[in-house]
Amino acid sequence: MNDRILGLRNKMAGLNIQGMIISNPINVKYLTGIEAEGILLITRKENVYITDSRYIEYVSNTITPFDEIVVDDFKNISKDDYENFFLFCENVGFEENFVTYADYKRYMHTYKINNFVEASCLMEKLRIIKDSEEINSIKQACKITDDCFEILLEYIKPGMTEKDIAKKIENYYREHSDGVSFEPIVASGENSSKPHAVPTERKINENDIITIDMGCKVNGYCSDMTRTIFIGEPTEEQKRVYNIVLENQEKSLNEMKDGASIKDITKIVTSNFELQGYDLVHALGHGVGLEIHEHPFIRLTSDNTLKERMVVTNEPGIYIPGNFGVRIEDTVLITKDGPEVLTKSKKSL
Amino acid sequence: MNDRILGLRNKMAGLNIQGMIISNPINVKYLTGIEAEGILLITRKENVYITDSRYIEYVSNTITPFDEIVVDDFKNISKDDYENFFLFCENVGFEENFVTYADYKRYMHTYKINNFVEASCLMEKLRIIKDSEEINSIKQACKITDDCFEILLEYIKPGMTEKDIAKKIENYYREHSDGVSFEPIVASGENSSKPHAVPTERKINENDIITIDMGCKVNGYCSDMTRTIFIGEPTEEQKRVYNIVLENQEKSLNEMKDGASIKDITKIVTSNFELQGYDLVHALGHGVGLEIHEHPFIRLTSDNTLKERMVVTNEPGIYIPGNFGVRIEDTVLITKDGPEVLTKSKKSL
Repeated sequence: MNDRILGLRNKMAGLNIQGMIISNPINVKYLTGIEAEGILLITRKENVYITDSRYIEYVSNTITPFDEIVVDDFKNISKDDYENFFLFCENVGFEENFVTYADYKRYMHTYKINNFVEASCLMEKLRIIKDSEEINSIKQACKITDDCFEILLEYIKPGMTEKDIAKKIENYYREHSDGVSFEPIVASGENSSKPHAVPTERKINENDIITIDMGCKVNGYCSDMTRTIFIGEPTEEQKRVYNIVLENQEKSLNEMKDGASIKDITKIVTSNFELQGYDLVHALGHGVGLEIHEHPFIRLTSDNTLKERMVVTNEPGIYIPGNFGVRIEDTVLITKDGPEVLTKSKKSL
Repeated sequence: MNDRILGLRNKMAGLNIQGMIISNPINVKYLTGIEAEGILLITRKENVYITDSRYIEYVSNTITPFDEIVVDDFKNISKDDYENFFLFCENVGFEENFVTYADYKRYMHTYKINNFVEASCLMEKLRIIKDSEEINSIKQACKITDDCFEILLEYIKPGMTEKDIAKKIENYYREHSDGVSFEPIVASGENSSKPHAVPTERKINENDIITIDMGCKVNGYCSDMTRTIFIGEPTEEQKRVYNIVLENQEKSLNEMKDGASIKDITKIVTSNFELQGYDLVHALGHGVGLEIHEHPFIRLTSDNTLKERMVVTNEPGIYIPGNFGVRIEDTVLITKDGPEVLTKSKKSL
């Protein structure tokens, strides 16, 4: 059996869960490599992937005997088969953060499950720690993002629109990676005061501030980076805000170590911002992996600590409504020797 | 209040539902035009959109006073406010096909809801009948799809890969529409025997069969069309199968009228296919709108009838595993005068 399914089975045993239904395609991909429409059952005896005729051929070609996964066409599964999958299971887990209420009821009924227990945390705990293969993919995605940013610095000229720049990013990623990990944000002038602005037809001015938030995917794994750049000379206020954000990004980075409290790291930035009269209106960061936003979330309400082999973003930002905003973001790997910044594009004004 | 929210309120009244939580972004867009992260509450007295500071500015600029939507930052909503939204509501509806089990529990608790009832059907019933604005968008998306197909017929040459063709489609749509409505399927040779094949590096041969399934979006509305084409001369078997599929597509189209039984329409194709020794392995079609697959689903298990102003696909297909497959698909508008085929690309062999 592959290591990831074994890891899940270990975590299940620790929670007295004997069976599990994995229906989130990202978790199925994580555990099996399969990218199709189907459902993975972890039963007492077997791992079963149920799909339909459209995918049988592809799935059979994707998994190896080593995975120990039985592939079934749902058309060949009888009512009795369904009810036998989790026979003698005291508890069966499901992904409560993915499964809809309608599916929850349907699964309960179809598989005749007595105790259907919320177990999203099992998959989150597995995925939060990255193995070398995953880290390698994220590093590649970060490198491509740095390369893309270098090209943007040459490319961006007054007169072009935010959409032009976003298109350039998308095209670059399409050519050099598996594509964007999210729709790029290109927010110029007063648009930069919106943390999640959508690129518009606004033209870049001779003197302008531009926030660019972008990332790509390699083997399904994401990168995430934001830089705020200036065309021409920034105003005194812009310089001041930029330096506050940059200093705080460095301060929080320095604390991103194995064992560090996520709450404490976040507090550094929120306290410093407040002293200067600003609010941190969004989280300081989030995990990055197969999803662009995943565990751990770096915010005041977290009770967790950072661990070696986690990959998170570090992205303080200050937004002055209707005026301008500054955000600086890196993707960071936690190692036993401290934080390793994976996105290396320069941040000097 | 806008017509769509009024329509929802009418349907709610019919089911004795006094409040509703709309959290599916597609339904929020349908009812309000808003594309952001947030939640729409239909309360006894008001329509409330709750979002966060990132979107307040955008949302306020998107809605009009005529919509009668109150916009709130969730940071300004107290525990009491939450509990008062649905005070004196006997039943509060939610979208059971969208809301995760975790959110279901969270909503129940946050809003102190007693009877939280499954009401996905309300939104489905609203969206299933398209207004003129929606039909216009779908028609535009279908026209762009026809134009793209015409260009493909010139473009496709032996030696290029399935991926090359898929890229051409994506680029065309990016330039002429809001982008693809789903990842295009380009399946050549034996790959065409997989109904949902992913484009590969396989090169088109001098004598080849290619199934192309593609669609784009205009104003958020989708088009969906499949054509199976031949490079060089089709084999006798390919010709025979192609003609069976085409004849059946014409037969089912002729029955797509206001009031027609969906089951009966599907039965025409499944029965004819079976007589020839083939199975219809997927649904005959599906609704098309803001989602590429939505209600009504055209399959044997449906008890519904087609109605004027529905937009559905008509897509019979025959797949001979490891050998080849043929699917022909159009997007069809049901009018009071009968079916109107919106995708007009030619289907002659």
